[in-house]
Amino acid sequence: MNERKTLLEAFKQADYPLTGHGKRDVQVLKNALDAVDGSLESDHYGSGQVIEDYQNRMADYLGKEAAVFFPSGTMAQQIALRIWCDRNQLKRVAYHPLCHLEIHEEHGLQELHRIESVLLADKDRVITLEDVQQMPEDIACLLLELPQREIGGQLPDYEELEAISAYCRNQGIKLHMDGARLLEVTPYYGKSAAEISKLFDSVYISVYKGIGGVAGAILAGDRDVMEESKVWKRRHGGDLISLYPYILSADYYFNQHEHQMQRYYREAVELAALYNECHGVTTLPEVPVSNMFHVHIHVPKEKLEPVLLEIYAATGVGLTSYLSTEEGASSPCRYEVTIGDRYAGVPTEVIQQALRMLDERLRTLK
Amino acid sequence: MNERKTLLEAFKQADYPLTGHGKRDVQVLKNALDAVDGSLESDHYGSGQVIEDYQNRMADYLGKEAAVFFPSGTMAQQIALRIWCDRNQLKRVAYHPLCHLEIHEEHGLQELHRIESVLLADKDRVITLEDVQQMPEDIACLLLELPQREIGGQLPDYEELEAISAYCRNQGIKLHMDGARLLEVTPYYGKSAAEISKLFDSVYISVYKGIGGVAGAILAGDRDVMEESKVWKRRHGGDLISLYPYILSADYYFNQHEHQMQRYYREAVELAALYNECHGVTTLPEVPVSNMFHVHIHVPKEKLEPVLLEIYAATGVGLTSYLSTEEGASSPCRYEVTIGDRYAGVPTEVIQQALRMLDERLRTLK
Repeated sequence: MNERKTLLEAFKQADYPLTGHGKRDVQVLKNALDAVDGSLESDHYGSGQVIEDYQNRMADYLGKEAAVFFPSGTMAQQIALRIWCDRNQLKRVAYHPLCHLEIHEEHGLQELHRIESVLLADKDRVITLEDVQQMPEDIACLLLELPQREIGGQLPDYEELEAISAYCRNQGIKLHMDGARLLEVTPYYGKSAAEISKLFDSVYISVYKGIGGVAGAILAGDRDVMEESKVWKRRHGGDLISLYPYILSADYYFNQHEHQMQRYYREAVELAALYNECHGVTTLPEVPVSNMFHVHIHVPKEKLEPVLLEIYAATGVGLTSYLSTEEGASSPCRYEVTIGDRYAGVPTEVIQQALRMLDERLRTLK
Repeated sequence: MNERKTLLEAFKQADYPLTGHGKRDVQVLKNALDAVDGSLESDHYGSGQVIEDYQNRMADYLGKEAAVFFPSGTMAQQIALRIWCDRNQLKRVAYHPLCHLEIHEEHGLQELHRIESVLLADKDRVITLEDVQQMPEDIACLLLELPQREIGGQLPDYEELEAISAYCRNQGIKLHMDGARLLEVTPYYGKSAAEISKLFDSVYISVYKGIGGVAGAILAGDRDVMEESKVWKRRHGGDLISLYPYILSADYYFNQHEHQMQRYYREAVELAALYNECHGVTTLPEVPVSNMFHVHIHVPKEKLEPVLLEIYAATGVGLTSYLSTEEGASSPCRYEVTIGDRYAGVPTEVIQQALRMLDERLRTLK
């Protein structure tokens, strides 16, 4: 715990942290508000210009009839699944074993909505058409996460995605997208967010991942579904008198980051290649398909941490703020890399120097 | 609808709107953030200095072991009631027929938590000890709203409140306070927020009513209950990566408004007395017990609106932004008055002039 704090501190103090857009501090919100006139009226329980304009623009961007701003993706997605279950009169949905709803939400879907989940595919791969074809019959909705975050941000081929979508439509199974990082996969697919969303009945995107806002989520779909989602938003306690702090920052940073996704993707591919040249290091996926990947280093934590601290001190590069270990103290380490604005500000030779040093230290480590 | 919009517009444009703290615009948040250094780190899913410090201070203020910041009171209260139901192994709670949970939350408590509600007392009066004594036996928790907003902000006598609290403790019934406007009743009771909270097992307060923040709520109680509430907060989708926009503004405006409650209360009593001198006008309660009351004017809407517009134009005073009618077009009108910062900025003679004019117009109205 103490050592981990040291790594976090060293990362924060590094001249060149490689991951993310920047610090998550109050300045992020201040900058967004500086662009807005103080006389702009607050939204009011889901109504008003601030929220309605933004929702309309995001609906257009996602190629859907309507969109609703939610305080969180957790709330937005449970509600989407609940609506599909009610409409299909079935209380079961299917998703990946490492789905956000399964591992990060204290089973709100089950506890609040009494919806059962069927887990598809193995933990370490994405859901295939075959998995979907073999689902039990009484599934109201299938959730696909693009990209599958917990396994490094992997994606199905676009043709497979189209085939899954066609199969679900044919079977009357609703298809929902966990698109927390949807914008981040548009370069790899070579498709717009709207084109990808067209394959789905409902789409959630996060406004604070690649987009870089403070918090919040968008749910998009047909108008009647979105109207129903507002009733559930009220029930969840998400229909706040004012959501504008999140909306204004989402809007501001969307405009800054939306057109940068190609660059983040290219930089992730570049950095992953450098990692894969290091002794005992692999990335998942080997070649990223978005702005993210996972780094696996086959060295126990107590040996790796001093190495990283040495690299941060010598090069100024912060590679990661933490190390995860899965099966105990002597197991390999893992961390997530997400490329944002910071990466482009780091000189290439400095990055190369840091990775070379990592390679050298790992080669000589006992 | 069109005329109502006109009244809203006229109120907004009035030199002297009498109700509230001020406009709910983006400047409210900007002012709060101007007092904060941009390098302050965001909270992170319920952890971090920003949220923990604020929660600790509010726990102290309310005399409870712990407090949790929620995006909304809707979420905080459903969760409090859910925890009490789980602990008492009963799925029924009791509250007033005009309780927020019964009329403003799309029955989230019933739809999400499958908790039934038993309605106590008549709509037009507060819950008494007798009502509580006559409750069915299988009630996990009683919710009391202080003050009862939908009937003008009425309160039980403090002795009655103490007796209800003692009865519930004795019977093993948990007592929860909807204290959305708790601070606003401390002057009438002559008690601190902590003294009143002591009578309750859990307490919710809003941070954007009298306190004047942007949005959000505090739930306070024993430490183990608050820890459990964090799990439910996650399930509801309220455990946001960043709640600091609401926390920082709640903190800033608490410091500005907390010590003004005595004044708002006194001003409400003063203004209600002026209203009661007008022909065909009564206030509920006749003598306010907080910073709020309702105005009942026994004139149909289509006759009253032109009178109000005339008064706003002639005196610059905005009395209300809306008129409610309950039983049809020719029924009397009703609106809520909440005293905040604005009232003290209006010259007394201007207020008196506006109310005199209201009296005169109502006397000659046909």
